[in-house]
Amino acid sequence: MAHLGARLTRIAPGVVHIALPARPEVTQQHGYFHAGATSSIADSAGGYAAFTLFPENTEVLTVEYKINLLAPALGDHLEAVGTVLRAGRTLTVCQLEVFAAQENGTRKLVANGQQTLIRVNRTAQ
Amino acid sequence: MAHLGARLTRIAPGVVHIALPARPEVTQQHGYFHAGATSSIADSAGGYAAFTLFPENTEVLTVEYKINLLAPALGDHLEAVGTVLRAGRTLTVCQLEVFAAQENGTRKLVANGQQTLIRVNRTAQ
Amino acid sequence: MAHLGARLTRIAPGVVHIALPARPEVTQQHGYFHAGATSSIADSAGGYAAFTLFPENTEVLTVEYKINLLAPALGDHLEAVGTVLRAGRTLTVCQLEVFAAQENGTRKLVANGQQTLIRVNRTAQ
Amino acid sequence: MAHLGARLTRIAPGVVHIALPARPEVTQQHGYFHAGATSSIADSAGGYAAFTLFPENTEVLTVEYKINLLAPALGDHLEAVGTVLRAGRTLTVCQLEVFAAQENGTRKLVANGQQTLIRVNRTAQ
Repeated sequence: MAHLGARLTRIAPGVVHIALPARPEVTQQHGYFHAGATSSIADSAGGYAAFTLFPENTEVLTVEYKINLLAPALGDHLEAVGTVLRAGRTLTVCQLEVFAAQENGTRKLVANGQQTLIRVNRTAQ
Repeated sequence: MAHLGARLTRIAPGVVHIALPARPEVTQQHGYFHAGATSSIADSAGGYAAFTLFPENTEVLTVEYKINLLAPALGDHLEAVGTVLRAGRTLTVCQLEVFAAQENGTRKLVANGQQTLIRVNRTAQ
Repeated sequence: MAHLGARLTRIAPGVVHIALPARPEVTQQHGYFHAGATSSIADSAGGYAAFTLFPENTEVLTVEYKINLLAPALGDHLEAVGTVLRAGRTLTVCQLEVFAAQENGTRKLVANGQQTLIRVNRTAQ
Repeated sequence: MAHLGARLTRIAPGVVHIALPARPEVTQQHGYFHAGATSSIADSAGGYAAFTLFPENTEVLTVEYKINLLAPALGDHLEAVGTVLRAGRTLTVCQLEVFAAQENGTRKLVANGQQTLIRVNRTAQ
Protein backbone atom coordinates (compact mmCIF):
# COMPACT_ATOMS: atom_id res chain seq x y z
CA MET A 1 0.00 0.00 0.00
CA ALA A 2 2.74 2.44 0.96
CA HIS A 3 4.49 1.49 -2.26
CA LEU A 4 1.43 2.62 -4.23
CA GLY A 5 1.10 5.83 -2.26
CA ALA A 6 -2.12 4.79 -0.54
CA ARG A 7 -3.10 5.93 2.94
CA LEU A 8 -5.80 5.08 5.49
CA THR A 9 -8.21 8.02 5.73
CA ARG A 10 -10.85 6.58 8.04
CA ILE A 11 -10.79 3.76 10.58
CA ALA A 12 -13.96 2.95 12.47
CA PRO A 13 -15.32 -0.36 13.82
CA GLY A 14 -16.11 -2.40 10.72
CA VAL A 15 -15.37 0.41 8.22
CA VAL A 16 -12.10 1.54 6.68
CA HIS A 17 -11.40 4.07 3.92
CA ILE A 18 -8.24 4.14 1.84
CA ALA A 19 -7.26 6.98 -0.48
CA LEU A 20 -4.95 6.56 -3.45
CA PRO A 21 -3.79 9.74 -5.23
CA ALA A 22 -3.27 9.67 -9.00
CA ARG A 23 0.40 9.05 -9.76
CA PRO A 24 2.24 7.67 -12.76
CA GLU A 25 2.86 4.34 -10.98
CA VAL A 26 -0.86 3.61 -10.64
CA THR A 27 -2.35 5.21 -13.75
CA GLN A 28 -2.27 4.47 -17.46
CA GLN A 29 -1.46 6.72 -20.38
CA HIS A 30 -4.87 8.46 -20.34
CA GLY A 31 -4.89 9.10 -16.60
CA TYR A 32 -7.10 6.18 -15.64
CA PHE A 33 -6.15 4.19 -12.58
CA HIS A 34 -5.04 0.64 -13.32
CA ALA A 35 -7.53 -2.09 -12.48
CA GLY A 36 -4.79 -3.65 -10.37
CA ALA A 37 -4.50 -0.54 -8.22
CA THR A 38 -8.28 -0.27 -7.90
CA SER A 39 -8.57 -3.89 -6.80
CA SER A 40 -5.60 -3.71 -4.44
CA ILE A 41 -6.96 -0.83 -2.39
CA ALA A 42 -10.42 -2.42 -2.34
CA ASP A 43 -8.93 -5.67 -1.02
CA SER A 44 -6.89 -3.77 1.58
CA ALA A 45 -9.84 -1.65 2.73
CA GLY A 46 -11.87 -4.80 3.35
CA GLY A 47 -8.99 -6.48 5.14
CA TYR A 48 -8.48 -3.55 7.49
CA ALA A 49 -12.25 -3.21 8.06
CA ALA A 50 -12.38 -6.85 9.18
CA PHE A 51 -9.28 -6.36 11.31
CA THR A 52 -10.91 -3.53 13.30
CA LEU A 53 -13.28 -6.14 14.75
CA PHE A 54 -10.69 -8.78 15.59
CA PRO A 55 -9.24 -9.49 19.04
CA GLU A 56 -5.56 -8.99 19.84
CA ASN A 57 -2.95 -11.40 18.53
CA THR A 58 -4.93 -12.26 15.43
CA GLU A 59 -4.32 -11.58 11.77
CA VAL A 60 -6.55 -11.35 8.77
CA LEU A 61 -6.10 -13.13 5.44
CA THR A 62 -8.15 -12.64 2.29
CA VAL A 63 -9.79 -15.94 1.32
CA GLU A 64 -11.29 -14.59 -1.90
CA TYR A 65 -12.90 -11.56 -3.43
CA LYS A 66 -14.96 -10.67 -6.46
CA ILE A 67 -14.94 -7.23 -7.97
CA ASN A 68 -16.88 -5.56 -10.77
CA LEU A 69 -15.09 -2.74 -12.54
CA LEU A 70 -18.12 -0.53 -13.22
CA ALA A 71 -16.66 2.51 -14.94
CA PRO A 72 -13.31 3.96 -15.98
CA ALA A 73 -11.46 5.06 -12.85
CA LEU A 74 -10.56 8.62 -13.75
CA GLY A 75 -10.02 11.21 -11.05
CA ASP A 76 -7.77 13.10 -8.72
CA HIS A 77 -7.74 10.16 -6.33
CA LEU A 78 -9.51 6.89 -5.61
CA GLU A 79 -11.28 6.17 -2.36
CA ALA A 80 -11.83 2.55 -1.37
CA VAL A 81 -14.39 1.76 1.32
CA GLY A 82 -14.41 -1.60 3.07
CA THR A 83 -17.47 -2.38 5.19
CA VAL A 84 -18.04 -5.51 7.26
CA LEU A 85 -21.33 -7.19 6.34
CA ARG A 86 -20.96 -10.11 8.70
CA ALA A 87 -18.31 -10.79 11.31
CA GLY A 88 -17.97 -14.39 12.41
CA ARG A 89 -15.52 -16.16 14.67
CA THR A 90 -13.71 -17.66 11.71
CA LEU A 91 -14.95 -15.88 8.59
CA THR A 92 -15.79 -12.26 7.91
CA VAL A 93 -17.54 -10.93 4.81
CA CYS A 94 -17.01 -7.37 3.57
CA GLN A 95 -18.53 -5.14 0.96
CA LEU A 96 -15.97 -3.30 -1.16
CA GLU A 97 -16.59 0.00 -2.94
CA VAL A 98 -14.19 2.18 -4.87
CA PHE A 99 -15.03 5.77 -5.79
CA ALA A 100 -13.15 8.05 -8.18
CA ALA A 101 -13.07 11.54 -6.72
CA GLN A 102 -12.37 14.77 -8.59
CA GLU A 103 -10.84 17.88 -7.09
CA ASN A 104 -14.19 19.64 -7.53
CA GLY A 105 -15.78 17.20 -5.10
CA THR A 106 -17.66 14.94 -7.53
CA ARG A 107 -17.46 11.27 -6.63
CA LYS A 108 -18.37 8.26 -8.75
CA LEU A 109 -18.64 4.56 -7.92
CA VAL A 110 -16.12 2.85 -10.22
CA ALA A 111 -15.86 -0.59 -8.64
CA ASN A 112 -17.94 -2.76 -6.34
CA GLY A 113 -16.99 -6.02 -4.75
CA GLN A 114 -17.45 -8.61 -2.07
CA GLN A 115 -14.78 -10.32 -0.04
CA THR A 116 -14.36 -13.25 2.35
CA LEU A 117 -11.64 -13.10 5.01
CA ILE A 118 -10.37 -15.51 7.62
CA ARG A 119 -9.07 -14.77 11.09
CA VAL A 120 -5.88 -16.52 12.08
CA ASN A 121 -4.03 -16.51 15.35
CA ARG A 122 -0.75 -14.68 15.20
CA THR A 123 2.15 -17.01 15.82
CA ALA A 124 5.54 -16.00 17.13
CA GLN A 125 7.97 -15.75 14.21
CA MET B 1 -40.12 -19.03 -9.42
CA ALA B 2 -43.81 -19.98 -9.48
CA HIS B 3 -42.73 -23.59 -9.08
CA LEU B 4 -40.93 -22.66 -5.83
CA GLY B 5 -43.88 -20.62 -4.56
CA ALA B 6 -42.05 -17.30 -4.87
CA ARG B 7 -43.81 -14.02 -5.64
CA LEU B 8 -42.78 -10.46 -6.52
CA THR B 9 -43.59 -8.22 -3.57
CA ARG B 10 -42.08 -4.93 -4.75
CA ILE B 11 -41.25 -3.58 -8.18
CA ALA B 12 -39.70 -0.12 -8.46
CA PRO B 13 -37.20 1.32 -10.94
CA GLY B 14 -33.99 -0.57 -10.26
CA VAL B 15 -35.28 -2.44 -7.21
CA VAL B 16 -37.26 -5.67 -6.94
CA HIS B 17 -38.22 -7.75 -3.90
CA ILE B 18 -39.18 -11.42 -4.05
CA ALA B 19 -40.72 -13.35 -1.16
CA LEU B 20 -40.45 -17.10 -0.75
CA PRO B 21 -42.55 -18.74 1.99
CA ALA B 22 -41.16 -21.74 3.86
CA ARG B 23 -42.47 -24.93 2.26
CA PRO B 24 -41.23 -28.52 2.24
CA GLU B 25 -40.01 -28.15 -1.37
CA VAL B 26 -37.56 -25.38 -0.46
CA THR B 27 -36.50 -26.31 3.07
CA GLN B 28 -34.40 -29.05 4.64
CA GLN B 29 -35.18 -31.35 7.53
CA HIS B 30 -34.52 -28.70 10.19
CA GLY B 31 -36.58 -25.98 8.50
CA TYR B 32 -33.67 -24.16 6.87
CA PHE B 33 -34.14 -22.95 3.34
CA HIS B 34 -31.96 -24.74 0.79
CA ALA B 35 -29.00 -22.75 -0.51
CA GLY B 36 -30.36 -23.42 -4.00
CA ALA B 37 -33.63 -21.70 -3.18
CA THR B 38 -31.84 -18.78 -1.54
CA SER B 39 -29.59 -18.29 -4.57
CA SER B 40 -32.42 -18.71 -7.07
CA ILE B 41 -34.57 -15.94 -5.63
CA ALA B 42 -31.52 -13.68 -5.29
CA ASP B 43 -30.64 -14.23 -8.96
CA SER B 44 -34.25 -13.62 -9.98
CA ALA B 45 -34.58 -10.45 -7.89
CA GLY B 46 -31.49 -9.01 -9.58
CA GLY B 47 -32.72 -10.01 -13.02
CA TYR B 48 -36.07 -8.33 -12.53
CA ALA B 49 -34.43 -5.24 -10.99
CA ALA B 50 -32.28 -4.85 -14.11
CA PHE B 51 -35.29 -5.49 -16.31
CA THR B 52 -37.24 -2.58 -14.77
CA LEU B 53 -34.70 -0.23 -16.40
CA PHE B 54 -34.66 -1.84 -19.84
CA PRO B 55 -36.49 -0.55 -22.94
CA GLU B 56 -39.25 -2.52 -24.62
CA ASN B 57 -38.44 -5.58 -26.69
CA THR B 58 -35.39 -6.47 -24.68
CA GLU B 59 -34.63 -9.35 -22.40
CA VAL B 60 -32.23 -9.86 -19.54
CA LEU B 61 -29.78 -12.72 -19.07
CA THR B 62 -27.61 -13.42 -16.05
CA VAL B 63 -23.95 -13.38 -17.09
CA GLU B 64 -22.65 -14.38 -13.67
CA TYR B 65 -23.21 -13.93 -9.99
CA LYS B 66 -21.36 -14.46 -6.75
CA ILE B 67 -23.15 -15.07 -3.49
CA ASN B 68 -22.00 -15.44 0.12
CA LEU B 69 -24.21 -17.56 2.34
CA LEU B 70 -23.79 -15.61 5.57
CA ALA B 71 -26.01 -17.43 8.03
CA PRO B 72 -28.47 -20.31 8.20
CA ALA B 73 -31.65 -19.29 6.38
CA LEU B 74 -34.27 -20.07 8.99
CA GLY B 75 -37.56 -18.23 9.03
CA ASP B 76 -41.16 -17.90 8.04
CA HIS B 77 -40.15 -16.66 4.62
CA LEU B 78 -37.16 -15.37 2.69
CA GLU B 79 -37.07 -11.95 1.09
CA ALA B 80 -34.63 -11.36 -1.77
CA VAL B 81 -33.81 -7.78 -2.74
CA GLY B 82 -32.19 -6.99 -6.08
CA THR B 83 -30.83 -3.46 -6.50
CA VAL B 84 -29.21 -2.04 -9.62
CA LEU B 85 -25.77 -0.59 -8.84
CA ARG B 86 -24.93 0.41 -12.39
CA ALA B 87 -27.09 0.27 -15.49
CA GLY B 88 -25.23 0.34 -18.80
CA ARG B 89 -26.34 -0.06 -22.38
CA THR B 90 -25.02 -3.61 -22.52
CA LEU B 91 -24.22 -4.67 -18.96
CA THR B 92 -26.00 -4.06 -15.69
CA VAL B 93 -24.61 -4.83 -12.23
CA CYS B 94 -26.86 -5.58 -9.27
CA GLN B 95 -26.44 -6.05 -5.57
CA LEU B 96 -28.28 -9.08 -4.16
CA GLU B 97 -29.46 -9.44 -0.58
CA VAL B 98 -31.53 -12.18 1.01
CA PHE B 99 -33.17 -11.76 4.39
CA ALA B 100 -34.80 -14.44 6.53
CA ALA B 101 -37.96 -13.01 8.10
CA GLN B 102 -39.79 -14.35 11.10
CA GLU B 103 -43.50 -13.97 11.78
CA ASN B 104 -42.67 -11.68 14.69
CA GLY B 105 -41.09 -9.19 12.30
CA THR B 106 -37.39 -9.88 12.93
CA ARG B 107 -35.31 -9.90 9.78
CA LYS B 108 -31.75 -11.12 9.29
CA LEU B 109 -29.36 -10.87 6.33
CA VAL B 110 -28.60 -14.47 5.35
CA ALA B 111 -26.99 -14.02 1.93
CA ASN B 112 -25.30 -11.23 0.02
CA GLY B 113 -24.22 -11.23 -3.59
CA GLN B 114 -23.31 -9.37 -6.71
CA GLN B 115 -24.50 -10.06 -10.23
CA THR B 116 -23.70 -9.08 -13.82
CA LEU B 117 -26.48 -9.11 -16.40
CA ILE B 118 -26.64 -8.51 -20.14
CA ARG B 119 -29.40 -6.90 -22.17
CA VAL B 120 -30.38 -8.70 -25.33
CA ASN B 121 -32.86 -7.71 -27.99
CA ARG B 122 -35.93 -9.88 -28.07
CA THR B 123 -36.20 -11.80 -31.30
CA ALA B 124 -39.42 -13.14 -32.78
CA GLN B 125 -39.70 -16.85 -32.00
CA MET C 1 -31.64 -32.41 -4.93
CA ALA C 2 -34.07 -35.30 -4.80
CA HIS C 3 -36.86 -32.78 -5.18
CA LEU C 4 -35.32 -31.62 -8.48
CA GLY C 5 -34.76 -35.17 -9.70
CA ALA C 6 -30.98 -34.98 -9.49
CA ARG C 7 -28.77 -37.96 -8.72
CA LEU C 8 -25.11 -38.58 -7.94
CA THR C 9 -23.50 -40.32 -10.89
CA ARG C 10 -19.84 -40.37 -9.80
CA ILE C 11 -18.19 -40.16 -6.40
CA ALA C 12 -14.41 -40.25 -6.22
CA PRO C 13 -11.95 -38.59 -3.81
CA GLY C 14 -12.27 -34.89 -4.55
CA VAL C 15 -14.61 -35.28 -7.53
CA VAL C 16 -18.38 -35.66 -7.70
CA HIS C 17 -20.75 -35.69 -10.69
CA ILE C 18 -24.46 -34.94 -10.48
CA ALA C 19 -26.93 -35.55 -13.30
CA LEU C 20 -30.20 -33.68 -13.65
CA PRO C 21 -32.64 -34.91 -16.30
CA ALA C 22 -34.81 -32.38 -18.16
CA ARG C 23 -38.22 -32.15 -16.49
CA PRO C 24 -40.90 -29.48 -16.43
CA GLU C 25 -39.96 -28.46 -12.86
CA VAL C 26 -36.44 -27.48 -13.86
CA THR C 27 -36.88 -26.18 -17.41
CA GLN C 28 -38.48 -23.11 -18.97
CA GLN C 29 -40.96 -22.83 -21.82
CA HIS C 30 -38.33 -23.42 -24.53
CA GLY C 31 -36.77 -26.44 -22.84
CA TYR C 32 -33.82 -24.62 -21.31
CA PHE C 33 -32.85 -25.52 -17.79
CA HIS C 34 -33.45 -22.75 -15.25
CA ALA C 35 -30.35 -20.93 -14.07
CA GLY C 36 -31.47 -21.80 -10.53
CA ALA C 37 -31.34 -25.52 -11.31
CA THR C 38 -27.97 -25.19 -13.03
CA SER C 39 -26.50 -23.34 -10.07
CA SER C 40 -28.04 -25.67 -7.50
CA ILE C 41 -26.50 -28.82 -8.91
CA ALA C 42 -23.15 -27.05 -9.36
CA ASP C 43 -23.18 -25.97 -5.71
CA SER C 44 -24.16 -29.49 -4.62
CA ALA C 45 -21.49 -31.18 -6.75
CA GLY C 46 -18.82 -28.98 -5.17
CA GLY C 47 -20.17 -29.60 -1.69
CA TYR C 48 -20.12 -33.36 -2.12
CA ALA C 49 -16.67 -33.25 -3.74
CA ALA C 50 -15.32 -31.43 -0.68
CA PHE C 51 -17.14 -33.84 1.61
CA THR C 52 -15.38 -36.88 0.07
CA LEU C 53 -12.14 -35.57 1.60
CA PHE C 54 -13.49 -34.79 5.07
CA PRO C 55 -13.04 -36.94 8.17
CA GLU C 56 -15.97 -38.57 9.95
CA ASN C 57 -18.34 -36.50 12.06
CA THR C 58 -17.87 -33.38 10.00
CA GLU C 59 -20.19 -31.47 7.74
CA VAL C 60 -19.66 -29.13 4.83
CA LEU C 61 -21.21 -25.70 4.36
CA THR C 62 -20.97 -23.49 1.29
CA VAL C 63 -19.33 -20.19 2.25
CA GLU C 64 -19.76 -18.64 -1.19
CA TYR C 65 -19.67 -19.41 -4.86
CA LYS C 66 -19.44 -17.56 -8.14
CA ILE C 67 -20.84 -18.94 -11.36
CA ASN C 68 -20.76 -17.80 -14.98
CA LEU C 69 -23.67 -18.92 -17.11
CA LEU C 70 -21.81 -19.42 -20.39
CA ALA C 71 -24.47 -20.65 -22.77
CA PRO C 72 -28.14 -21.63 -22.82
CA ALA C 73 -28.54 -24.91 -20.94
CA LEU C 74 -30.44 -26.96 -23.48
CA GLY C 75 -30.21 -30.72 -23.48
CA ASP C 76 -31.46 -34.09 -22.40
CA HIS C 77 -29.81 -33.69 -19.03
CA LEU C 78 -27.30 -31.52 -17.18
CA GLU C 79 -24.15 -32.89 -15.65
CA ALA C 80 -22.49 -30.93 -12.86
CA VAL C 81 -18.88 -31.71 -11.96
CA GLY C 82 -17.39 -30.53 -8.68
CA THR C 83 -13.61 -30.85 -8.32
CA VAL C 84 -11.55 -29.93 -5.27
CA LEU C 85 -8.78 -27.48 -6.14
CA ARG C 86 -7.44 -27.11 -2.65
CA ALA C 87 -8.41 -28.94 0.53
CA GLY C 88 -7.49 -27.23 3.76
CA ARG C 89 -8.22 -28.00 7.39
CA THR C 90 -10.85 -25.30 7.56
CA LEU C 91 -11.56 -24.18 4.00
CA THR C 92 -11.84 -26.09 0.75
CA VAL C 93 -12.02 -24.55 -2.73
CA CYS C 94 -13.75 -26.30 -5.62
CA GLN C 95 -14.08 -25.78 -9.33
CA LEU C 96 -17.63 -26.14 -10.63
CA GLU C 97 -18.55 -27.11 -14.19
CA VAL C 98 -21.96 -27.82 -15.68
CA PHE C 99 -22.37 -29.52 -19.05
CA ALA C 100 -25.53 -29.86 -21.11
CA ALA C 101 -25.65 -33.33 -22.63
CA GLN C 102 -27.74 -34.44 -25.59
CA GLU C 103 -29.02 -37.96 -26.17
CA ASN C 104 -26.66 -38.23 -29.15
CA GLY C 105 -23.68 -37.85 -26.80
CA THR C 106 -22.71 -34.24 -27.51
CA ARG C 107 -21.73 -32.33 -24.39
CA LYS C 108 -21.30 -28.58 -23.97
CA LEU C 109 -19.96 -26.50 -21.08
CA VAL C 110 -22.85 -24.23 -20.07
CA ALA C 111 -21.68 -22.94 -16.69
CA ASN C 112 -18.38 -22.60 -14.85
CA GLY C 113 -17.83 -21.57 -11.28
CA GLN C 114 -15.68 -21.50 -8.21
CA GLN C 115 -16.73 -22.22 -4.66
CA THR C 116 -15.41 -21.88 -1.10
CA LEU C 117 -16.59 -24.33 1.56
CA ILE C 118 -16.03 -24.68 5.28
CA ARG C 119 -15.73 -27.83 7.34
CA VAL C 120 -17.71 -27.90 10.55
CA ASN C 121 -17.83 -30.51 13.26
CA ARG C 122 -21.12 -32.32 13.42
CA THR C 123 -22.90 -31.72 16.69
CA ALA C 124 -25.43 -34.06 18.24
CA GLN C 125 -28.94 -32.78 17.47
CA MET D 1 2.67 -4.59 -15.53
CA ALA D 2 6.02 -3.17 -16.60
CA HIS D 3 5.96 -1.14 -13.41
CA LEU D 4 5.72 -4.36 -11.40
CA GLY D 5 8.44 -6.07 -13.42
CA ALA D 6 6.07 -8.57 -15.04
CA ARG D 7 6.62 -9.97 -18.53
CA LEU D 8 4.64 -12.10 -20.99
CA THR D 9 6.24 -15.53 -21.21
CA ARG D 10 3.75 -17.33 -23.45
CA ILE D 11 1.18 -16.11 -25.97
CA ALA D 12 -0.96 -18.66 -27.78
CA PRO D 13 -4.55 -18.48 -29.05
CA GLY D 14 -6.66 -18.26 -25.90
CA VAL D 15 -3.78 -18.76 -23.46
CA VAL D 16 -1.31 -16.28 -22.00
CA HIS D 17 1.32 -16.71 -19.28
CA ILE D 18 2.81 -13.83 -17.29
CA ALA D 19 5.84 -14.16 -15.02
CA LEU D 20 6.53 -11.85 -12.10
CA PRO D 21 9.92 -12.16 -10.38
CA ALA D 22 10.15 -11.59 -6.62
CA ARG D 23 11.20 -8.00 -5.95
CA PRO D 24 10.83 -5.72 -2.94
CA GLU D 25 8.04 -3.75 -4.69
CA VAL D 26 5.77 -6.80 -4.94
CA THR D 27 6.66 -8.77 -1.83
CA GLN D 28 6.09 -8.35 1.89
CA GLN D 29 8.53 -8.55 4.77
CA HIS D 30 8.62 -12.37 4.77
CA GLY D 31 9.12 -12.73 1.03
CA TYR D 32 5.50 -13.46 0.17
CA PHE D 33 4.07 -11.80 -2.90
CA HIS D 34 1.37 -9.24 -2.14
CA ALA D 35 -2.18 -10.34 -2.90
CA GLY D 36 -2.46 -7.21 -5.05
CA ALA D 37 0.41 -8.33 -7.24
CA THR D 38 -0.97 -11.86 -7.49
CA SER D 39 -4.39 -10.57 -8.52
CA SER D 40 -2.99 -8.01 -10.95
CA ILE D 41 -1.02 -10.50 -13.01
CA ALA D 42 -3.96 -12.95 -12.96
CA ASP D 43 -6.27 -10.22 -14.27
CA SER D 44 -3.74 -9.23 -16.93
CA ALA D 45 -3.13 -12.83 -18.06
CA GLY D 46 -6.86 -13.31 -18.59
CA GLY D 47 -7.16 -10.00 -20.41
CA TYR D 48 -4.36 -10.84 -22.82
CA ALA D 49 -5.69 -14.40 -23.31
CA ALA D 50 -9.05 -12.97 -24.38
CA PHE D 51 -7.33 -10.40 -26.56
CA THR D 52 -5.51 -13.11 -28.56
CA LEU D 53 -8.91 -14.16 -29.94
CA PHE D 54 -10.21 -10.68 -30.78
CA PRO D 55 -10.29 -9.12 -34.25
CA GLU D 56 -8.28 -6.02 -35.12
CA ASN D 57 -9.32 -2.62 -33.85
CA THR D 58 -10.88 -3.98 -30.71
CA GLU D 59 -9.92 -3.66 -27.08
CA VAL D 60 -10.61 -5.74 -24.01
CA LEU D 61 -11.94 -4.53 -20.68
CA THR D 62 -12.31 -6.55 -17.50
CA VAL D 63 -15.96 -6.60 -16.44
CA GLU D 64 -15.33 -8.48 -13.22
CA TYR D 65 -13.25 -11.21 -11.70
CA LYS D 66 -13.27 -13.42 -8.64
CA ILE D 67 -10.13 -14.86 -7.18
CA ASN D 68 -9.40 -17.29 -4.35
CA LEU D 69 -6.04 -16.88 -2.65
CA LEU D 70 -5.32 -20.54 -1.95
CA ALA D 71 -1.92 -20.51 -0.30
CA PRO D 72 0.87 -18.11 0.65
CA ALA D 73 2.58 -16.94 -2.54
CA LEU D 74 6.19 -17.66 -1.71
CA GLY D 75 8.70 -18.31 -4.45
CA ASP D 76 11.32 -17.15 -6.86
CA HIS D 77 8.63 -15.88 -9.21
CA LEU D 78 4.91 -16.06 -9.84
CA GLU D 79 3.43 -17.40 -13.05
CA ALA D 80 -0.10 -16.35 -13.97
CA VAL D 81 -1.97 -18.37 -16.59
CA GLY D 82 -5.07 -16.97 -18.30
CA THR D 83 -7.12 -19.43 -20.34
CA VAL D 84 -10.25 -18.62 -22.35
CA LEU D 85 -13.15 -20.84 -21.33
CA ARG D 86 -15.70 -19.28 -23.66
CA ALA D 87 -15.22 -16.64 -26.32
CA GLY D 88 -18.34 -14.79 -27.38
CA ARG D 89 -18.94 -11.84 -29.66
CA THR D 90 -19.45 -9.52 -26.71
CA LEU D 91 -18.30 -11.38 -23.60
CA THR D 92 -15.39 -13.70 -22.96
CA VAL D 93 -14.87 -15.79 -19.83
CA CYS D 94 -11.41 -16.83 -18.66
CA GLN D 95 -9.99 -19.13 -16.03
CA LEU D 96 -7.17 -17.59 -14.01
CA GLU D 97 -4.43 -19.55 -12.25
CA VAL D 98 -1.37 -18.29 -10.43
CA PHE D 99 1.52 -20.58 -9.51
CA ALA D 100 4.43 -19.83 -7.22
CA ALA D 101 7.60 -21.27 -8.71
CA GLN D 102 10.82 -22.02 -6.91
CA GLU D 103 14.27 -22.01 -8.47
CA ASN D 104 14.43 -25.79 -7.98
CA GLY D 105 11.48 -26.20 -10.34
CA THR D 106 8.69 -26.87 -7.86
CA ARG D 107 5.46 -25.12 -8.71
CA LYS D 108 2.40 -24.62 -6.52
CA LEU D 109 -1.07 -23.28 -7.29
CA VAL D 110 -1.48 -20.24 -5.03
CA ALA D 111 -4.52 -18.53 -6.57
CA ASN D 112 -7.41 -19.52 -8.80
CA GLY D 113 -9.99 -17.29 -10.36
CA GLN D 114 -12.58 -16.63 -12.99
CA GLN D 115 -13.01 -13.50 -15.06
CA THR D 116 -15.53 -11.91 -17.41
CA LEU D 117 -14.29 -9.56 -20.13
CA ILE D 118 -15.98 -7.39 -22.72
CA ARG D 119 -14.83 -6.58 -26.24
CA VAL D 120 -15.07 -2.97 -27.26
CA ASN D 121 -14.34 -1.33 -30.58
CA ARG D 122 -11.27 0.85 -30.52
CA THR D 123 -12.16 4.45 -31.18
CA ALA D 124 -9.75 7.04 -32.55
CA GLN D 125 -8.39 9.11 -29.67
